[in-house]
Amino acid sequence: MTIDLDRYRIAPGDAPHLDERDTADTQGLSEEQDEDRVDEQVEDNLDQIDDLQERLYAEDKQSLLVVLQAMDGAGKDSTIRSVFGPLNPQGVRVASFKAPTKEELAHDFLWRIHKQAPEAGHIRVFNRSHYEDVLIVRVHGWAAPEIIERRYDHINHFEALLADRGTRILKLMLHVSPEYQLERMRRRLERPDKHWKFNPGDLEERKLWDDYMDVFEIALTRCSTDVAPWYVIPAEERWFRDLVVSQLVLETLQDMDPQYPEPGFDPADYPPESIS
Amino acid sequence: MTIDLDRYRIAPGDAPHLDERDTADTQGLSEEQDEDRVDEQVEDNLDQIDDLQERLYAEDKQSLLVVLQAMDGAGKDSTIRSVFGPLNPQGVRVASFKAPTKEELAHDFLWRIHKQAPEAGHIRVFNRSHYEDVLIVRVHGWAAPEIIERRYDHINHFEALLADRGTRILKLMLHVSPEYQLERMRRRLERPDKHWKFNPGDLEERKLWDDYMDVFEIALTRCSTDVAPWYVIPAEERWFRDLVVSQLVLETLQDMDPQYPEPGFDPADYPPESIS
Repeated sequence: MTIDLDRYRIAPGDAPHLDERDTADTQGLSEEQDEDRVDEQVEDNLDQIDDLQERLYAEDKQSLLVVLQAMDGAGKDSTIRSVFGPLNPQGVRVASFKAPTKEELAHDFLWRIHKQAPEAGHIRVFNRSHYEDVLIVRVHGWAAPEIIERRYDHINHFEALLADRGTRILKLMLHVSPEYQLERMRRRLERPDKHWKFNPGDLEERKLWDDYMDVFEIALTRCSTDVAPWYVIPAEERWFRDLVVSQLVLETLQDMDPQYPEPGFDPADYPPESIS
Repeated sequence: MTIDLDRYRIAPGDAPHLDERDTADTQGLSEEQDEDRVDEQVEDNLDQIDDLQERLYAEDKQSLLVVLQAMDGAGKDSTIRSVFGPLNPQGVRVASFKAPTKEELAHDFLWRIHKQAPEAGHIRVFNRSHYEDVLIVRVHGWAAPEIIERRYDHINHFEALLADRGTRILKLMLHVSPEYQLERMRRRLERPDKHWKFNPGDLEERKLWDDYMDVFEIALTRCSTDVAPWYVIPAEERWFRDLVVSQLVLETLQDMDPQYPEPGFDPADYPPESIS
């Protein structure tokens, strides 16, 4: 099964045109006819990712950073669970960025982010990220416009720094429609065991949907680079979303091509049966 | 399937008598006849752990710390993979402690450990831990005897501090025989893709097996407490080991009994169909 990933990639300097994108795109695959086949492909992708992740860990030189951003209810948690959950937890870690603490606010906005940069050999997933500082912060005017204006460059420089040290960066916006979000919120209200995920304040944020799309449009236009590209993933069909995300991660790791290191000893000196 | 976990628990003040324990114990279950049934039980345990972990995360009050210690090749990595790998990576994190850095050595031995204590709502697995400071350090005499002597109390006080804040602590020694370790080392030498896991220095450590058992014996005797008990897990039959570890984690979480929090709103004010 071959899918086209390029259509989701934002070329440097291009605008993503979020309003023209189909949030339920499946590249012609249908849930009824193709879901099983897609699920198998996702399984197979995860097996391959798992092998490559072990090589990455053994090689101990490069790392992979996956940044997830999305509107509430778009499926960040479920993507993490489906695509990164099955991997070895020793080499894959999730960093979730919530409202900054007082200590974090007493530093530049990248300070807390930098601390979570992946070490060599590791995959790190950011559930929200430094992009909040040009998204929610811009929508609400929590920082002065000239401050926010400078942040796009700071972000690009920071990501280039990580890339220079061997970190590959994939940035994924999970793209859904406001109607889809409403459905998800209703589901949270229908199920008492999901009430803890609902916050009445989310309904207020929801009214700012268009403002959010505007700031996403700006951020993705200014911060999609060769070393840290943005992808806009159609996220309403979750079985298809998992295919796209797993395929992207797989192809990225294949391109990184991690290698088992040369052993620090001569295997000829240690025939297995000779050791004791 | 009911298995007896108590036989692996070290009561406070008791010696574990490591040399009298069967490292291949399976409580009468046999690989040929029972492995499938055991695997199913492990699957079922993991499903239940998964549900409880979501509750723990939602409740956001308690946390669980699982400390893993073992001789090289005893299966720490594979235990993490089998029992904690399938859980949601957002709520479960592994902290691996290797040789301390210069900065870490410039502090007390619990400084780097404390930083990795689990936050409320989370499960944290320690792959090696502060116990290295009374195990390998004692075997090699890297600290003065009177310094090491005081560490047992420091450890107990530290663990009590975590427990008082709502952290449940399980400490697991994966117990194998030196013959089993030799088999595992030979396997690493037989497979070129496992060479990176082999270090000729491991053969030197292996010669100190009895010394290691002595210091484990002391550490488990002095640091198994009501709030942070040690368990000695027979780890040679991996299918059975996974049953024991998953059962222990499950029963601990059941005992912690995390609850979904009361929503911060009155659900009656938000009928699902009314929101927009």
